[in-house]
Amino acid sequence: MNPDPSLQLRVFDLNCWAIRYLSKLRQERIGLIGDTLSQEGFDLALLQEVWSERDYCELKQKLTAHYPYSHYFKSGVIGSGLCVFSRYPILDTFLYQYSLNGYPYMLQHGDWFCGKAVGLLVITICGIIFHVYVTHLHAEYCREKDAYLPHRVVQAWELAQFIQHTSKGADVVLLGGDLNMHPKDVGIRLLRGWTGLRDSFADTERFEGCEDGCTLVPANCFTSTEELQPFPLGIRIDYILYKGLSHFVMKCDNLVTTTGTAPGQRIPYSDHEAIIATLCVKRRGEAEGSRVRAVEPELVDVVNEARTEVRVGLHAAERQRYSKGRMAVLSLLLLLLQAAMGLSSLAGWDSQQPFPKFSFSLLGLLATVVLLVSTALYIFHTIEVKMLQGTEEQMRLALQALQDRFSSM
Amino acid sequence: MNPDPSLQLRVFDLNCWAIRYLSKLRQERIGLIGDTLSQEGFDLALLQEVWSERDYCELKQKLTAHYPYSHYFKSGVIGSGLCVFSRYPILDTFLYQYSLNGYPYMLQHGDWFCGKAVGLLVITICGIIFHVYVTHLHAEYCREKDAYLPHRVVQAWELAQFIQHTSKGADVVLLGGDLNMHPKDVGIRLLRGWTGLRDSFADTERFEGCEDGCTLVPANCFTSTEELQPFPLGIRIDYILYKGLSHFVMKCDNLVTTTGTAPGQRIPYSDHEAIIATLCVKRRGEAEGSRVRAVEPELVDVVNEARTEVRVGLHAAERQRYSKGRMAVLSLLLLLLQAAMGLSSLAGWDSQQPFPKFSFSLLGLLATVVLLVSTALYIFHTIEVKMLQGTEEQMRLALQALQDRFSSM
Repeated sequence: MNPDPSLQLRVFDLNCWAIRYLSKLRQERIGLIGDTLSQEGFDLALLQEVWSERDYCELKQKLTAHYPYSHYFKSGVIGSGLCVFSRYPILDTFLYQYSLNGYPYMLQHGDWFCGKAVGLLVITICGIIFHVYVTHLHAEYCREKDAYLPHRVVQAWELAQFIQHTSKGADVVLLGGDLNMHPKDVGIRLLRGWTGLRDSFADTERFEGCEDGCTLVPANCFTSTEELQPFPLGIRIDYILYKGLSHFVMKCDNLVTTTGTAPGQRIPYSDHEAIIATLCVKRRGEAEGSRVRAVEPELVDVVNEARTEVRVGLHAAERQRYSKGRMAVLSLLLLLLQAAMGLSSLAGWDSQQPFPKFSFSLLGLLATVVLLVSTALYIFHTIEVKMLQGTEEQMRLALQALQDRFSSM
Repeated sequence: MNPDPSLQLRVFDLNCWAIRYLSKLRQERIGLIGDTLSQEGFDLALLQEVWSERDYCELKQKLTAHYPYSHYFKSGVIGSGLCVFSRYPILDTFLYQYSLNGYPYMLQHGDWFCGKAVGLLVITICGIIFHVYVTHLHAEYCREKDAYLPHRVVQAWELAQFIQHTSKGADVVLLGGDLNMHPKDVGIRLLRGWTGLRDSFADTERFEGCEDGCTLVPANCFTSTEELQPFPLGIRIDYILYKGLSHFVMKCDNLVTTTGTAPGQRIPYSDHEAIIATLCVKRRGEAEGSRVRAVEPELVDVVNEARTEVRVGLHAAERQRYSKGRMAVLSLLLLLLQAAMGLSSLAGWDSQQPFPKFSFSLLGLLATVVLLVSTALYIFHTIEVKMLQGTEEQMRLALQALQDRFSSM
């Protein structure tokens, strides 16, 4: 028996940008992704933004030989877009939908309709229990004035909490996905600090690909050069993160990103670059023991920073709730007034109608629509307020636990 | 050192029925609950239906001396209603909102607005890690024709999955709550079979209280005798379930329910009876080892039965989605027709208006309202369909894993 066996794993991660009727060259690109996955024979392929289940089924059919196991996570109106193809049996799956994910009325952004979530897959490879997480967080549409930052911070917190609470039985944790956060953003620091996940780009022994490991680069013909103007090299928002637990250590031997086009092709796989990591899992040496991870004191600052962002979001949500509530009350008052006028006119108390009937009806129509929409939005923002308050409270509790831990050291 | 130390824990569980403006004698009962908790000095109190945060704060203030730690789980429009008071520090909390929870248009039932969820608290007592879960599932309004059964089965499945995935690091698992299911219902069998949780009523050494452990009894002045007519003894829908993991065993020494009134009072705490369990945690004997729980072969039938219920729900949701979609399309067509008629009338092509202006506008108003409402409901039922499909697929995967396990035995 080999005294120090190590397991090598090749993982492919890609945000596929496969929106039916909207994404350019979608079918061609899905075909290309299928071909590459099939030829390269990775161990795991973690895909995001496969919005159409037909595309998933097409991939599944093509990949049955090399990836006999696969899973598509269903959620939201459109679907979560998350799917995984695996060479090894998927023993269990679990989905956690983020409690906040944008606004239904931001139709031009559409994140709300996607049911953003984190999917967990339990896979055993050579007796090692892998907890594989795949996720996609809310997009950032304007970095200078990012209205979605509090929601993304809540998602990063929920992701970190979900991983922490569900990975206790795992030997190895692997997270792949489009986190829509730059490496130094508060959400990433929170996620990494809270979970102890390591960044494959920062830790890899060999790297080949876009400078700084960027996954949204100007060289990609599908990216908007205007949006990337402040970042001439591009940005890194797609990640493969990992950690070994209990008796295992994991490291990244090799990391590769595509560089604007799919290898040997004239087009890229997507508007994002693909990441391919070669990971190595090894049993921890006797001398190392099963270490308990030391929590960095900076984590307190990171949680505090995240909590401030949540508070900013809370104030905005409270303002929105108030304005929607006021709108609903005003439109209800207008409708009641109109009803009273209509009734008095019908009863013959008013000899003359103060408004022409047509304008009167149009006004009624408008008030009804405003009442319905603002009531629905009032309910929506009330839920948002509750979730932000809940997260803020959870973070307060987490800070207290951290401080207790440091003071008892 | 005591070679066989055991820990005794007294747990109080109650659905408090504390809906502002609606629940009878709410303030009086909340006061009574606070007094009892304070006097009895339980180790843990798991409360449901504390809908108002003011009531929670009132209880918190009253109980600070005996229960210095507490947590209220925020979710939904009204709040989750779930809160916990503890003698021991709460180290961490996590909330999982059920993906399905009734319908927003069923205002008379209102479950959708409550954001039903399961809350997890991590508590360490004498070095033993407790994962305490508190939950409240969708109510059953009509047992003969229970339209919410598929949603409740999905909730029971998600609860079971959540407990299984988050309890790997625990020594002891404790679940308290109003599950809104009778002991033989498919959801309870699924939950208990999947998680291996034991029922304190079935396992207790001593029991005192309502016959059959019922928690909704005709003797309670707040229950509807009409609803309980088919069950002369009452029904049991509130539970304290538990299991010991790793090196610990747990058993129930004593179980008590109230019997229609609070002890020594003329009124009950709530329309539900309270459950008080005295639980005993002991380190597993060397001889017993750390057993891996044997999965019962009947579990396959239970998952199959649950899957059938989910399928029934799926068909109903698909029908609803179709009818709402058709309604939206028809109202849109009507609006377009009206717009065309209005424009042609304005352009002077029609010398005579075919309808009186007032009826014409009223029809427009009606079509707009129907369009808005049916579009929103179409979106809602699409999400419902996706979640039911996702659960069905998860159950299929679970069945496969179970069958593989049995065939490899």
